[in-house]
Amino acid sequence: MKHILSAKDFSKEDIENVFALARKKVWPTLAGKVMAALFYEPSTRTYGSFISAMQRLGGGIIPISGMGNTSVVKGETFRDTVETFSKLSDIIVIRHPESGAAHIAAEVSTVPVINAGDGTGEHPTQALLDLFTIQSHFHDISEVTVTFVGDLKNGRTVHSLRSLLSLYHPKKVHFVSPRELAIPGITGSDNLEEVLPETDVLYMTRVQKERFSDPLSYERLKDRFRVTSATMKKLKKTAILMHPLPRVTEIATDVDRDPRAVYFREQIKNGLYVRMALLSLLLAT
Amino acid sequence: MKHILSAKDFSKEDIENVFALARKKVWPTLAGKVMAALFYEPSTRTYGSFISAMQRLGGGIIPISGMGNTSVVKGETFRDTVETFSKLSDIIVIRHPESGAAHIAAEVSTVPVINAGDGTGEHPTQALLDLFTIQSHFHDISEVTVTFVGDLKNGRTVHSLRSLLSLYHPKKVHFVSPRELAIPGITGSDNLEEVLPETDVLYMTRVQKERFSDPLSYERLKDRFRVTSATMKKLKKTAILMHPLPRVTEIATDVDRDPRAVYFREQIKNGLYVRMALLSLLLAT
Amino acid sequence: MKHILSAKDFSKEDIENVFALARKKVWPTLAGKVMAALFYEPSTRTYGSFISAMQRLGGGIIPISGMGNTSVVKGETFRDTVETFSKLSDIIVIRHPESGAAHIAAEVSTVPVINAGDGTGEHPTQALLDLFTIQSHFHDISEVTVTFVGDLKNGRTVHSLRSLLSLYHPKKVHFVSPRELAIPGITGSDNLEEVLPETDVLYMTRVQKERFSDPLSYERLKDRFRVTSATMKKLKKTAILMHPLPRVTEIATDVDRDPRAVYFREQIKNGLYVRMALLSLLLAT
Repeated sequence: MKHILSAKDFSKEDIENVFALARKKVWPTLAGKVMAALFYEPSTRTYGSFISAMQRLGGGIIPISGMGNTSVVKGETFRDTVETFSKLSDIIVIRHPESGAAHIAAEVSTVPVINAGDGTGEHPTQALLDLFTIQSHFHDISEVTVTFVGDLKNGRTVHSLRSLLSLYHPKKVHFVSPRELAIPGITGSDNLEEVLPETDVLYMTRVQKERFSDPLSYERLKDRFRVTSATMKKLKKTAILMHPLPRVTEIATDVDRDPRAVYFREQIKNGLYVRMALLSLLLAT
Repeated sequence: MKHILSAKDFSKEDIENVFALARKKVWPTLAGKVMAALFYEPSTRTYGSFISAMQRLGGGIIPISGMGNTSVVKGETFRDTVETFSKLSDIIVIRHPESGAAHIAAEVSTVPVINAGDGTGEHPTQALLDLFTIQSHFHDISEVTVTFVGDLKNGRTVHSLRSLLSLYHPKKVHFVSPRELAIPGITGSDNLEEVLPETDVLYMTRVQKERFSDPLSYERLKDRFRVTSATMKKLKKTAILMHPLPRVTEIATDVDRDPRAVYFREQIKNGLYVRMALLSLLLAT
Repeated sequence: MKHILSAKDFSKEDIENVFALARKKVWPTLAGKVMAALFYEPSTRTYGSFISAMQRLGGGIIPISGMGNTSVVKGETFRDTVETFSKLSDIIVIRHPESGAAHIAAEVSTVPVINAGDGTGEHPTQALLDLFTIQSHFHDISEVTVTFVGDLKNGRTVHSLRSLLSLYHPKKVHFVSPRELAIPGITGSDNLEEVLPETDVLYMTRVQKERFSDPLSYERLKDRFRVTSATMKKLKKTAILMHPLPRVTEIATDVDRDPRAVYFREQIKNGLYVRMALLSLLLAT
């Protein structure tokens, strides 16, 4: 692995290598190494996670958010910026509103590139931390039924996690969304009630306001599927409720206290460990 | 002490513990620890002070300013953001335009929270550095007369410092302000000349433009009390002139060279030491 | 050397001291030291270079970009901000849209100040890295012909590099620009073809949109001089093509692959080494 661009690039062995390190939590030092975080769109969570991960490993950071503005000001091209930062840093973490941005970055960069989310495309490190979280609850994923809910068309975390999951042959995967937000070419459902009883992993996603040009469509669709304490009653005792965050209203806040809700309790910390593992594997010598 | 939220939470013993460490300047290492600085309103000074303090101790930083924007963009709630960062970091420093924000943060955070100023509420670390500065000049505060001047209604540093001072029973405290900017329920004066000769600590504050909805009121009140070289002539030789900064026009710049003016010369460095002491006490194991 | 403000302050001996350290790449540790990066205008490249340099040396950073806004909000003066940060940090790196800002900063700062570009004035660290790059190709600069092309009037990197070069008595220096963008008082040319064959160092600069009040003038002048593969055919085999970056359209992107194009391949890394050397010399004890 030179770059982390897409969940599709990972073999099962690659994944298990990353997870082994994330579980052991014995880290090499990255003192003297520097990670550039080039964030062309806001994402305080993923930004904070990488920034924290690199420094916990002893490395330095070049924290750049709000790149969009500064680049446009000078009429500079994206490729030139990436090439420049590949000389200033030892690894580049990139977030961009356009699909494919990370792949373009990897073409010009002379150091490893990690895709921290590009447009409606991919978000491989989120998918890894999600899979890591699932695996810590269910040792045999082939016995597990996963239900994705929400904006599946624009939700890049869903696209990336689907790829990884397929390597582990889950028992069943359900896709529940309003018709307008379904994954093109995939048979989904718009009935969450129906699949709840057999669900082991309920993976909620936010309907992303910023992907809609029409505010009325957003308002109409955003609350079609909500998890409340009533929903949780129909969910298996052994199931887990996941969310990539940020959450808007699709999970009621009183659900946070349910022990099956693992988004705050496990996913964020797991994200830190998985990213520390990736940085270690790409940078340690 | 788990959190640093309000000057009111400090006992005299707590304060002396912090000050002892700030005086000794022998620091434990915080290598491997990370501080999240969540600044929802601009404050380059306090931001820079915490960021510097944490790194001088060997720790890492998650520097987030201009949160207001990124949070609104995604419709994310404040509580969710704080909960997330409490998983990514070992301590959260928070600045927010609304009073009470730091207390809400402490409710959801699983790591210590330091209030770096919330609305017109509190600014406890500023109060600590101010008291530390006063104590380094006057060993017996019960002999000291303190005069607060300026926007006492909206000045959170004044509120916090008053609380701390009360534990040390100063000889006298004067409050001088335009009537409109007085502390509600406190007898003040609008005559600075009168109290100058007996003042040991002259504590000036800025009339804060951003707290006024009406620009005309601001213009009318901002220069009611100004310290000039003429003012300094009426001040005791042993007195000190303090200001939490930033200063606008309420202290003439030629006063900066007066040896009694300690805002640049002592307060800022003391702020660094006091914050290093607080971070050490909350994080060292 | 206490501050790095202008290329004019450097003697040949000063320069050789910096370059010796930049070549050796054996660095002292700056652990426990903190560098404040006060950027009043966007410059991701120079910002990233200093931020990376300081952390590779083991030091900490106070990363402040977009200062313009936060300062104006509070009505704070520039001098007060610099004085404050000189108490919070061990060295200040400053970028400002107005010429002379770095000199003013040095007047009030109690720690070393490095000018990272002020208005149309100076950009001494860029000049040093450029000279370092030239010297690594041509050991005897007195044999070298340098041709500057583009916006020579507003291009601060040109001003600074000219000063440094003059200490090494280059064989010849050509200035090629549209008449409107010539250096006042210097005889230039607007014919690049003429001087290409004898050029050893072709130094291209961007026509800076942000320096024009009239967008039509910008459009008319920006592409007057462009380097394409046709241009490169007329350039000596041993010549080098330099650019301070960011580039707009004045160098065609297919030229990047020419081995004589050193802007990405050498200048950026050299910038890192030269800045690490400067930070070391100013801070190591």
